Amino acid sequence: MIVPDTTEPLPMVNALKWGADGLIPAIVQDIETGDVLMMAWMDEPALRATIATGQTHFYSRSRRAHWHKGATSGHVQHVESIWVDCDGDVVLIKARQVGGACHEGYRSCFFRRLDADGSKLEVAARPVFDAAAVYARAEEPAAPTSA
Amino acid sequence: MIVPDTTEPLPMVNALKWGADGLIPAIVQDIETGDVLMMAWMDEPALRATIATGQTHFYSRSRRAHWHKGATSGHVQHVESIWVDCDGDVVLIKARQVGGACHEGYRSCFFRRLDADGSKLEVAARPVFDAAAVYARAEEPAAPTSA
Repeated sequence: MIVPDTTEPLPMVNALKWGADGLIPAIVQDIETGDVLMMAWMDEPALRATIATGQTHFYSRSRRAHWHKGATSGHVQHVESIWVDCDGDVVLIKARQVGGACHEGYRSCFFRRLDADGSKLEVAARPVFDAAAVYARAEEPAAPTSA
Repeated sequence: MIVPDTTEPLPMVNALKWGADGLIPAIVQDIETGDVLMMAWMDEPALRATIATGQTHFYSRSRRAHWHKGATSGHVQHVESIWVDCDGDVVLIKARQVGGACHEGYRSCFFRRLDADGSKLEVAARPVFDAAAVYARAEEPAAPTSA
């Protein structure tokens, strides 16, 4: 991923309360359906890249690397607006999702619902793309979402 | 807050990937408007209390204590459904919000939007209740949301 060399000051970025690990949770919401698509983590370069490019960029804690959402699958997220919560420690991004957000082939990563018993999870959505085929074409592994 | 003595097994709870601190991010979405209302943290007792009571309970990292959303303000969240993401490390709760979710008086904690310049935050919502009056009546301080 290319992090743009953004030298201009971004007071908003500085005003955020980044965690001790330098990260902040970023929720992505589907501008078309209103569905919550995913939650992942951003560090400051990822947020700056998101603002500069208009597409979401995150930081993977498990891979300790930046990732551009959709770089592998083509399923990028075009940013419509960026919101910050009252405490300044969570970001909400409303975006236009290409394809599906979930690396398992679903539109949203939240495709499992707790059942009426309150004990088991049940799949409550249908895949919108063939995840095995999409990620098999790519050299990179499927990008983690919130990991 | 009273954490119900739930002795029945909840496989869903055990299947979640809790963080090293025993917490998981919980996003709350307004079932009526579709708006993302807030993000806060849950530990296992908070999630069990949420499931058992049908109202959201969280864990405050700053106060190191459980809190029942709305205990101070009356602005509880009635849980409609609970969703888990593909990685099992984020929870999404669709809920019916009484009053406003934000301790600053707004319906949603995400009431500030990054402006067109990409540099400043602007308030893009109106308060739905008088936060000073609501929390002045209570002995407890205003509950933090995501802190």
